[in-house]
This record gives sequence, structure tokens and C-alpha cells, in this order.
Amino acid sequence: MMKRMVPIVAALWPIWFRKSFVNPSTSRSFSNQIIKSPSLLSLDLADSWFSSSKHSDHSSIQECPKKWISKIIDGTAIAEGIRSRITSEVSQIKELTGQVPGLAVILIGQRRDSQTYVRKKLAASEEVGIRFKLTTFPENCTECEVCNALCKFNEDPSIHGILVQLPLPQHLDESKILNCISLEKDVDGFHPLNIGTLAMQGMEPLFIPCTPKGCIELLLQLGVEISGKRAVVIGKSNIVGLPLSLLLQRHHATVSIVHAFTKNPEEITREADILVTAAGVPNLIRDSWLKPGAIVIDVGTTPVEDPSSEHGYRLIGDVCFEEATRVASAITPVPGGVGPMTVAMLLYNTLESSKRAFKLTK
Amino acid sequence: MMKRMVPIVAALWPIWFRKSFVNPSTSRSFSNQIIKSPSLLSLDLADSWFSSSKHSDHSSIQECPKKWISKIIDGTAIAEGIRSRITSEVSQIKELTGQVPGLAVILIGQRRDSQTYVRKKLAASEEVGIRFKLTTFPENCTECEVCNALCKFNEDPSIHGILVQLPLPQHLDESKILNCISLEKDVDGFHPLNIGTLAMQGMEPLFIPCTPKGCIELLLQLGVEISGKRAVVIGKSNIVGLPLSLLLQRHHATVSIVHAFTKNPEEITREADILVTAAGVPNLIRDSWLKPGAIVIDVGTTPVEDPSSEHGYRLIGDVCFEEATRVASAITPVPGGVGPMTVAMLLYNTLESSKRAFKLTK
Repeated sequence: MMKRMVPIVAALWPIWFRKSFVNPSTSRSFSNQIIKSPSLLSLDLADSWFSSSKHSDHSSIQECPKKWISKIIDGTAIAEGIRSRITSEVSQIKELTGQVPGLAVILIGQRRDSQTYVRKKLAASEEVGIRFKLTTFPENCTECEVCNALCKFNEDPSIHGILVQLPLPQHLDESKILNCISLEKDVDGFHPLNIGTLAMQGMEPLFIPCTPKGCIELLLQLGVEISGKRAVVIGKSNIVGLPLSLLLQRHHATVSIVHAFTKNPEEITREADILVTAAGVPNLIRDSWLKPGAIVIDVGTTPVEDPSSEHGYRLIGDVCFEEATRVASAITPVPGGVGPMTVAMLLYNTLESSKRAFKLTK
Repeated sequence: MMKRMVPIVAALWPIWFRKSFVNPSTSRSFSNQIIKSPSLLSLDLADSWFSSSKHSDHSSIQECPKKWISKIIDGTAIAEGIRSRITSEVSQIKELTGQVPGLAVILIGQRRDSQTYVRKKLAASEEVGIRFKLTTFPENCTECEVCNALCKFNEDPSIHGILVQLPLPQHLDESKILNCISLEKDVDGFHPLNIGTLAMQGMEPLFIPCTPKGCIELLLQLGVEISGKRAVVIGKSNIVGLPLSLLLQRHHATVSIVHAFTKNPEEITREADILVTAAGVPNLIRDSWLKPGAIVIDVGTTPVEDPSSEHGYRLIGDVCFEEATRVASAITPVPGGVGPMTVAMLLYNTLESSKRAFKLTK
């Protein structure tokens, strides 16, 4: 089965991606070149039932071929391409300003998966030239200690992005801690004002949450036309399911949200042209849950013990991968699918934030 | 056909609604007695796939009887009951503080439907004892003039709720004007921070937008178990479709959002146990769009010329009413369905805002 899969590598970057060093006073070409995701405002079309039939751009859904050879979506390769373009912009910023973007991360406790994620963010930041500042707290720290650290980062002009690695130990109030992060540095995009502006037509958030943004970017890099497609999101968490369903709607998908209280979820997922799952339940999604030819984005990353692997555990996705490859037209693996994209989008958000701080954006 | 319909009137209010005059220092019973909608935070259940099967409260969906006699949901009567309870609370507040809640409304231009809506809000406010302050502007007014008026209301301690009647003349920037309204007086609930906190689990907005709140309240007054039901929302506007889909999700419905770019929307609406339509297209929804036994909430109110009616026009809903009554188990008429509930929820939000200002809430 594995031999039939064809990895997709973003080998040929489109023409619109060209190095275009520009004067900061007219630095429009700095923006939206690193990733394909357009400005959300540019997506705001009139939701008019009568005019819709005339919108040929937004109603022409590509038909899927009848025979499926499932393709593994190579998130690692696509993220690498994005990081390489971020590296180039960071270097331009350094030339222009003498400064680099700065990212501050707070890690609390000893969760091995959290430690791995932070290590990956550190390595990726260093690779692209973003200054990375890690602050760790023991499991039993207080909200006050964490908020104090956040306040210092809020005031530090060399820091352009701040994130607190989730999940937090149970005794800490997540929303209280996240609310301490300045809106202008909330590169995770979890502030309710960011979520509200993401949800509302005519508005645009300062930051789009990294994992949802990474999922959309994968779809766009694959050339998937999102508008008009049936999209099903499994899970409605604040950090993945909710913002992802909002983002898919901004791209004019017809979205259904499936969650733990949904009866017969497989009946709904079987209608999905695009299925994004963030349930956190290993192998929940079987082949019978999928529409033939669906594109499957697996955000699930449940750590399970594995003494043979480097850090003593490995990550399992929500999708029964081998089964799904027989039905889906394209699928992200775990690991190597959404994970690297999340990290790349974090770097992208930090870069964009620094450009705002350095007044290098339009 | 019309003779078979049985109006539902909220004749017997449940026991939990009792007049309970309490000392302001322990005034918990002031809250959530007027309407059935619970606090959103109280709805936040773990979205855990494994525990869901144990949640008997949230998985036991009532089966529908096989023969349907469509019931007209009498929004006018249900809203009247809510207004009467608001009257009682306003009078208690007056006794306690010597003051009453105040609502300021700004009306721009000469739209007849907008004038009607404002007249209804005025009449309803006066009926319950809320002080109503109307400011009108000509069609060609400037954003600056409107924002100045809003700023004065923001600072006026006798005003607890402010709303700008929508839609605005095209030359005015809606989000710019709405952003002038203080978050604490945004009784329409359209501020992005209100929408963000409505969307996010673990958070609660200061105000829930009136029409979506009115729709949920109708369902709750009808005794509909929302959790686990398939709900379809037609339309994704900032003021109805979007907040309604978020609110239905907070109530654990499985929500799909249908819009102008949806292909074959009737395939999706036919799966809806609860269908809420806010497309603004008269008679869009035919009997073939409905699942037998569905509950249909029609938010559509398109004004059409009608010289025989009092103000020269009448309102038409999205649903082909007579057809729908043969398939749905219950349906809201237009007018007399959602409209009066929207007004009642506006009064409720103004009342709640005044209670916060007078420090009469927990």
C-alpha cells in the first residue's frame, strides 16, 4: 500500500513568489508572499443568494477523478519552503533595521510532548533567524508568576510574538493567563478579539491561529478550491476546531462541525470533500467515514508510549491512516503533516508582527 | 390548511419563574429568570469523544412522532411573557435605585422597514418602563456626526444600551460606526470581542446578539432539546447567521452553515432537525428542503410593496410557509415569529446591562 503513495512536494513555487527587496516606504511586496493564504478581507464576497450563480470563480468546483491513488501531503516539505522564504525576509529586515524578529515562549511543567513541540519551535526559529527566548516554570508555579513573565515580554520591544505552550497544568486558569498576552504579540491568535475578528466578515484579525492557518495553507498549496466545497471539521476546541471552522467559512466552504455530542458522525463526515479532524482520538476515523476522493487533514496528535522511539513516545493521528489512503485523494500523515505547518505559521505570525512593529507593512 | 395549525402560547410558565424580590447584595435570583437561556459557561461540557456516550442528558434526543400537525410558534405571545417579566424587574430596579434602564437608538435615513423596527422598539421599551432615547440623522449624515452622538451616549450614565439601526446608508462604514459603541453598552452584541467570547468555550460575552438569542429562546420555550440535534443555519451574516451558528454550537447542536456558495443547499437542509434561515430571500425554502418533523425558525424579513397594508409594505419570510407547515413539526410565522423575540431580547440585554451598572447582579 505504502508504495502506491506519491508524496507531494512543493517543487515549483509559483511565479508570484520572487525575491523582491523593496524600500520600506513602499514595502507592499513584503506581505502575503511567503504563504498563499490571501488577506481575509479580500475574501469577503457578498453572501447574496441571487448573485451567487453568476460568481463562476466561486461555483466551479473541480470534479474528482474516479480512480484514487491516495497522496501523502508532505507538510514537512511545504513547511520547509515557507521557512526558507521567512529566512529571506528576516535577513532583509536585519539589513534594513539592524534588528530581527523575537519570539518568547513559556513552557510550564514536564510534559514530554510539550517539550518536543517547544524544541521544534526553537530549532525552527533559529533556522530562520528569529530570536527565541524560552522561559520555563515548574509544574507547581502560580498564575501570578506566569503573568508577571508575560507582562515583561509585553513591554520588551525586542519581542514580537509571545506564546504559552498548551496545555497548562490543571491548577492554572488558561484564559486568565492567555489574556495577559498583549493583543499585538498574540502570535497564537487565541485572544477573543482575534477570534471575533476572524469570525466576522469585513474584519481581519491581527493573527490567525497557527494550526488552522497551516491547514488552510496546505489546502491552498495543493491547489484545492475551498469555496463551495463541503468541509467537515471534527472537534470544536478554541485552538483548532473553532478557528478552523471560521476560517473555512471565510473561504466560502460549506462547513459542518462534528463533535462529541454528534450522533452518527460518520454520516456527516462521509459528505465531506474536505475533512479536518482534531478530535484527539487515535484512529477514530475509519475508511467508512470518508467520501471517496476526500482530502483529509489530520490534526490529531495523541502521544502514546513507545520505548523504541527517541523520546519514549510517538504521535498517533485521528485517522486510521492505511485505511484512509485507500479512499481519500490526499491525506496528511502524523507526524509530518500539519505539525510542521503549525510551526511555520508561528514563525510567519512572528515575522508579520515584527514587520508591524518595524513599520515595514503597508 | 391554516385551520389545522395549533398556536403555541406559553400559557404555563415554569415554576422557576417566580417573583423573588431580593436584597441587592445577594441578588442572584435577579439573573436568568426572565428567559430560559442558561449562562453559556454552564453549557461548557468537555468535548471528549469517549465520555460522550455516558452523557445521557446530552445524547437522549427525543424521537419525533410520525404524523405531523405543524404548529405555529407564537413568537408574539412568548415575547409578551418575557416583556411582562422584564416590566416586573424594571419596577423592582426603580424601587431599589430610583432609576430605570435607558436605551438609546440611532436611526439614519428614511427606510420604512427600519422606521417600523424602531417604532416597535420604542413601544416595547415604553411598555416595560425602559427609558427610550431616539436620535435621528438624515440619509446624508457623516460618520463623524454619528460617532459623536454615540460617544455622548457612551458617557451618559442614564443610558445602558446603545444601538444603531441597521442597515446603514451605503456611504457609512458600518464597522467603524459600531466600534464607537462602548462594549458595556453594546446591547446588540455586534462588537468583535462579544462575538469572540460568544464563540469560545470557557468565555461568556457581555451581550448575545438579540435575534440569535431570540431564536434559541424560542427553541428552549418550546422544550426543544438542542444538544446533539442536527441544526442547519442558512446565511452567515455577522448579525444573525454567524452568532446563531456559534450559539447553537455552545448548546451542543451539530451545526452546518449553508450560504450563497453552497451547492445543492436543499440536500443539507433536509438533514436538519432544527432549521434556522436568515437568507433574506422570500420563499427560498420549499417543502422539499425540509426533513419531516423539523423545527423551522424563519428569520427572513424581506419588505415587499403592499399598498393595502398600514405602512405600504409587508414582510415576507424565507420559508414558503404553507408548504412548510405540511412537513415541519413547528414553524415561526413572518411576522409574529422571531421579530417580537428580537425586540424582547433587546429589552432583556438593556435590563441586564443596567443591572450591571447598578451593581444588582452577582
